[in-house]
Amino acid sequence: MENTYDFGLIGLGVMGRNFILNVADNQFTSMGYDLDQEKVNALIEEGKDTNKVNATSDIKEFVNSLSQPRKIMLLVPAGKIVDTVIESLLPHLDKNDLIIDGGNSFFTDTDRREAYLQEKGIHFFGSGVSGGAKGARRGPSIMPGGNKEAYKEVQPIFEAVAAKFKGEPCVAYLGPKSAGNYVKMVHNGIEYGLMQLTSEIYDLLKKAGKLTNDELHETFASWNKGRLQSFLVEITAEIFQKQDDKTDGRLVDQILDKAKQKGTGKWTSQNAMDLGIPVPSIDVAVSMREISALKEERVAAEDLYGRPTPEAIDKKALIKMAEEALYFAFINTYAQGLHQLAFASKEYGYELDLAVIAKIWRAGCIIRAELLEDISNAYAADKDLVNLLVAPNFVTEVKATLGGTRDVVAYAAKNGIPLPALSNSLTYFDAYTSGRLPLNLIQAQRDHFGSHTYERTDMEGIFHTEWED
Amino acid sequence: MENTYDFGLIGLGVMGRNFILNVADNQFTSMGYDLDQEKVNALIEEGKDTNKVNATSDIKEFVNSLSQPRKIMLLVPAGKIVDTVIESLLPHLDKNDLIIDGGNSFFTDTDRREAYLQEKGIHFFGSGVSGGAKGARRGPSIMPGGNKEAYKEVQPIFEAVAAKFKGEPCVAYLGPKSAGNYVKMVHNGIEYGLMQLTSEIYDLLKKAGKLTNDELHETFASWNKGRLQSFLVEITAEIFQKQDDKTDGRLVDQILDKAKQKGTGKWTSQNAMDLGIPVPSIDVAVSMREISALKEERVAAEDLYGRPTPEAIDKKALIKMAEEALYFAFINTYAQGLHQLAFASKEYGYELDLAVIAKIWRAGCIIRAELLEDISNAYAADKDLVNLLVAPNFVTEVKATLGGTRDVVAYAAKNGIPLPALSNSLTYFDAYTSGRLPLNLIQAQRDHFGSHTYERTDMEGIFHTEWED
Repeated sequence: MENTYDFGLIGLGVMGRNFILNVADNQFTSMGYDLDQEKVNALIEEGKDTNKVNATSDIKEFVNSLSQPRKIMLLVPAGKIVDTVIESLLPHLDKNDLIIDGGNSFFTDTDRREAYLQEKGIHFFGSGVSGGAKGARRGPSIMPGGNKEAYKEVQPIFEAVAAKFKGEPCVAYLGPKSAGNYVKMVHNGIEYGLMQLTSEIYDLLKKAGKLTNDELHETFASWNKGRLQSFLVEITAEIFQKQDDKTDGRLVDQILDKAKQKGTGKWTSQNAMDLGIPVPSIDVAVSMREISALKEERVAAEDLYGRPTPEAIDKKALIKMAEEALYFAFINTYAQGLHQLAFASKEYGYELDLAVIAKIWRAGCIIRAELLEDISNAYAADKDLVNLLVAPNFVTEVKATLGGTRDVVAYAAKNGIPLPALSNSLTYFDAYTSGRLPLNLIQAQRDHFGSHTYERTDMEGIFHTEWED
Repeated sequence: MENTYDFGLIGLGVMGRNFILNVADNQFTSMGYDLDQEKVNALIEEGKDTNKVNATSDIKEFVNSLSQPRKIMLLVPAGKIVDTVIESLLPHLDKNDLIIDGGNSFFTDTDRREAYLQEKGIHFFGSGVSGGAKGARRGPSIMPGGNKEAYKEVQPIFEAVAAKFKGEPCVAYLGPKSAGNYVKMVHNGIEYGLMQLTSEIYDLLKKAGKLTNDELHETFASWNKGRLQSFLVEITAEIFQKQDDKTDGRLVDQILDKAKQKGTGKWTSQNAMDLGIPVPSIDVAVSMREISALKEERVAAEDLYGRPTPEAIDKKALIKMAEEALYFAFINTYAQGLHQLAFASKEYGYELDLAVIAKIWRAGCIIRAELLEDISNAYAADKDLVNLLVAPNFVTEVKATLGGTRDVVAYAAKNGIPLPALSNSLTYFDAYTSGRLPLNLIQAQRDHFGSHTYERTDMEGIFHTEWED
């Protein structure tokens, strides 16, 4: 079995096993590797009917079994373990072999690893994979970045296993260096925003409209047939129907309201701040996961303040304006993430094609949505589109949803229902579309107390004033 | 003049010169150092009447002129230059000399420098100084951190030059390592929040109430006599009165609405995310500086969307609710920053006393405010106060301002006036005081697509569900 397998995969957790089975479905042979013999056995058992899957816990046997140039994908947790796996591979590799990191590595780690391996003649790809365990099995969205020529070696396999949207595979070469990891990071940042937004609308419908879980299911299911069609809206509809197997009720009501995070949303926000690009809907989605974790503090604070009783509102009208608000905020959240990608592309030399990125997000990944077709078209029509909000199509769409959005945010502010990501989507929009903002006052303050100078609207130059006479 | 000067200062810009003249006013002798002979001459000229000031551009002469243990303060820009200055000093120093970095160095840089210098027997202090050029001259707020014993050497000088609040100096030993820089960083984060909030209220009063600059002056001046009394409200009142010397109008109207930043607000937000502490009012203040910088994009976007005309509102009622909203948001912004400090104190071993920190912020610094007296008292009464919002006094204050705040945010959402920091203060409050948040849905989504598991409200344990039947 020397040099015969098409594809190697390291890390045989659920994602890894599923990815290999997906590769096998597409007529490529795979060798899996894991230190854990039980996982090795599990894969061999799961894959035996395919005749296309094998696995080992011997790294040398693993590498030697692969056809050259070897294509070795890592699906292991981000961090030190990636470096450890690379070091264990290195003695056995040959020039032009490819290592593909499929995890959520921080993009600067990917740049470091790519430079290190390039010296040794090995190609290194940071390649985000989205879609969860099911996506890995049935077709994920794959976001590879690295050496363009080397990508051709793995392209047939990736195009075969990737999700398809109207026949087009949801994978494409995105750019050099860490472009793939970076795009996946921002994908996840957008995901944080969209998830927070759906949870806010759920809260609004439940508290203001007193919708039952069945009504919530119906509402989200019907939205999923319209312009809000998306994976997250779809599974949200499903979630409200799920019976609890431990009580009489629905499972969603028994789940603790502490949301965990793995860091990619946080990285998106932190890096956006380094770039100077505003992504407030994503920032506050990160904040809300943090606040959710402070459960005991929240319970104690509610004891002191109580919660207001929302004023009555017509259920039908509420559902209509909630749909507008959610659609408006989805658009704004994609707009922020794509704005960040456009800027990062220049800053880091990724040469990203945002039309292609929106295309490969149309299926397979967590943020897949009907909307992405329009987004892709907007960037295809104007490569230099500076912000989605100013694309002609979207101007019309946004205008049509603005009324409901304003009503929702105003109602929630009055009635004590926290809609931070929705509010930030609206204030982002209102600030971004304000030719004149009041930050002239901030420049005046800075010049007053710190002699930081200011510019003028009516003439060129840098000015300083002695504000106190 | 060997070993006779009490205090050495490196970096003779405006801040440095002013700080030395302040030291001289307090009967201590100082030696200044700068590579730039012009700045050296300027200080000698400015200080000649005091007989307490000298300066040189010879590093050896500078160090030798100071009494031992030497107390050498750096007022140079944060970054590499601090390391360069340290290296140039090292050959001339003796054991137990103190180097005090008075700039806004990033706190991990301070930790690194302190550890490096400790090996050589030199004490290193990160010591934030707030108050701008005027503060340095008349009395700043000083935030030193480092070796507690060594602090005693510089304590008499710092207590003499610091601002006084009812006779108490606005300086105190804050904690080990980078405690001083960290506290100053969060001070600046709060400053970003308060500045953004005043600019938002300015926008509201101007657009909704059509207040003239004179009316804005009167409004802020009268607020400054009440519970909003603070340096930023005071200078805001002054700013509206300032005549432009180049046109007929007021200067504030001619200032370009692009606000600059030097990074400390951004660092506060980024580090809060690392700690997992929500500071959304500060985050969005950083975002708004970024949006403000996109002037050309904003002008183009306004052309496409237009701006709504705000509906009429009674001017008196508007001013009343604006005052409530600003006070509410100030409290929430301090609460967020102090929450971050409390958590950072545990995480980094600073052992901060928040009552003391609020005390030394009462005068001298940019965020000084009447409110800080109450804040200090709240932390003095309860050292383990988890969040300012749950201090008994503040529960009463916050409840009293909540109505106006809700009205302001709702009005602005309806009428297209972007109040992002105000909105985030309100949604932060509403989320923090919600015993139950809708993030159970997010945990359900994460478990649905990623098998990330969830906890339950009714039993211990970690659970996973197959959501698709």
